Amino acid sequence: MSITKVGLVGLGLMGGSLSIALKKLPKTYYFLGLDHNTKHCNQALELGLVDEVVSSLEMLKECDIIFLSIPVDGIISVAQNLGTLPPQCTVIDLGSTKEKISASIPSEIRQNFVTAHPMTGTEKFGPHAAIDNLYKDKVVVLCDLEKSGKHQVEVAKSLFDAIGMQIVCMDAAEHDRHAAFISHMPHALSYALANSVMQQEASKSIIALAGGGFKDMSRIAKSSPKMWEDIFRQNKTNVLKAIHSFQAELKKCEKMVENEDWSALNEWMSDANKLHDIL
Amino acid sequence: MSITKVGLVGLGLMGGSLSIALKKLPKTYYFLGLDHNTKHCNQALELGLVDEVVSSLEMLKECDIIFLSIPVDGIISVAQNLGTLPPQCTVIDLGSTKEKISASIPSEIRQNFVTAHPMTGTEKFGPHAAIDNLYKDKVVVLCDLEKSGKHQVEVAKSLFDAIGMQIVCMDAAEHDRHAAFISHMPHALSYALANSVMQQEASKSIIALAGGGFKDMSRIAKSSPKMWEDIFRQNKTNVLKAIHSFQAELKKCEKMVENEDWSALNEWMSDANKLHDIL
Repeated sequence: MSITKVGLVGLGLMGGSLSIALKKLPKTYYFLGLDHNTKHCNQALELGLVDEVVSSLEMLKECDIIFLSIPVDGIISVAQNLGTLPPQCTVIDLGSTKEKISASIPSEIRQNFVTAHPMTGTEKFGPHAAIDNLYKDKVVVLCDLEKSGKHQVEVAKSLFDAIGMQIVCMDAAEHDRHAAFISHMPHALSYALANSVMQQEASKSIIALAGGGFKDMSRIAKSSPKMWEDIFRQNKTNVLKAIHSFQAELKKCEKMVENEDWSALNEWMSDANKLHDIL
Repeated sequence: MSITKVGLVGLGLMGGSLSIALKKLPKTYYFLGLDHNTKHCNQALELGLVDEVVSSLEMLKECDIIFLSIPVDGIISVAQNLGTLPPQCTVIDLGSTKEKISASIPSEIRQNFVTAHPMTGTEKFGPHAAIDNLYKDKVVVLCDLEKSGKHQVEVAKSLFDAIGMQIVCMDAAEHDRHAAFISHMPHALSYALANSVMQQEASKSIIALAGGGFKDMSRIAKSSPKMWEDIFRQNKTNVLKAIHSFQAELKKCEKMVENEDWSALNEWMSDANKLHDIL
């Protein structure tokens, strides 16, 4: 039986959970891991997320598939430092932004790359954050596929399909506009909510009262600042547009409350209810 | 064995779940339900949430305990229409605001009342929304207890304790300031987020990509507009203060992204991370 060699660059939540998902398939995989964090390398070995830890990108070039599950600025840096790759090697990045990544891949290896964004995650990070079924029944967006090799598109599609994901294709620019609204701006809100509450004089008494609504809204305020700094940097323009759009809606709410325009407020909330006819 | 008669005014999520919680206790309860929505009355009977449906407040006056689990303006209206009550009767309102409710209760029956806010719920409503363990391990805030009768305080405390709640006492004004931050303003954010996304041209394509973060942040945008109109009305001043505090934080984020002040943004997100050392 042939063994598929998989390189995992970044041994955190996304990479680790991918290993768990792939190990459940009938195919046999051998995982080589690379992470600048030595503790994470050891934990990934202990947890059985990787079979072997390597110390350089060069040592991953014999892999059939290489996943880049690291912060988005790191993905660009790896893409630019990979050098040449065997024609059959497939590199799949899992970054939350796509336009700058897609454009930064050197032309000699552009065909090797498939740029993907699995719309899943938790606020946790590191190998111990890896969980079963993180990818199952979730959407993965594949971008700019016309720039990827035919073999690489087949490998990526069949792999994401095999782990139960729903594949959506679009161009990277469109992805980044959408992701700003559905993911990046909501993270900004969650961080802002957490900070606004913690700034209050009685913050501890306030937080002691937290119910499910607040816990849900502030959950992603626990996300990694390093990871999100990179995302906000790479998707600056779209993130600002999404923040402005949100601010305009909240301003409407503020004004209706201020002016005691209760029937308009009720209507505005009823409009928001409609989201759930779609979602 | 003595039977405790419980009146439930409002047969939705909160009242229905309370019936489920009380039925699990060794005591024997008999539930009389009152709701202006006839469909909800029938559903509550079918689901076994109440033993009997009554048609007027008058018919609940023989109850040992009466719960008011209806929108907050309705609670004030009921309090003002109850008339006289037997001295041993305990009325517990479960409204999300407390100051206006506490002040509106006629002085002749003020001792009968305990004003409570269980910090729990879901975005769903109606008898079918009632669930097991809604109250277990959650916080309930009891307000202005010095205005309640000794017997009533004992009844309320032992009941909330018996269903597994953590009791926190404070004055109603303080509760309303805290609830604005931990619950009311976050609802405004969720409604605004839902509306800002739905206003985009490609809204359906955007929403099709929703992952867990967006789903969590927009969940409470499904909440009942009627219920929330009343809450925003009753807690207007505190809600506006909380919205302003949030807006100032989001503005900081916007400016840091705009000015590409990434290290300050990273620090601001790290500050937000600290919420979870407390929560």
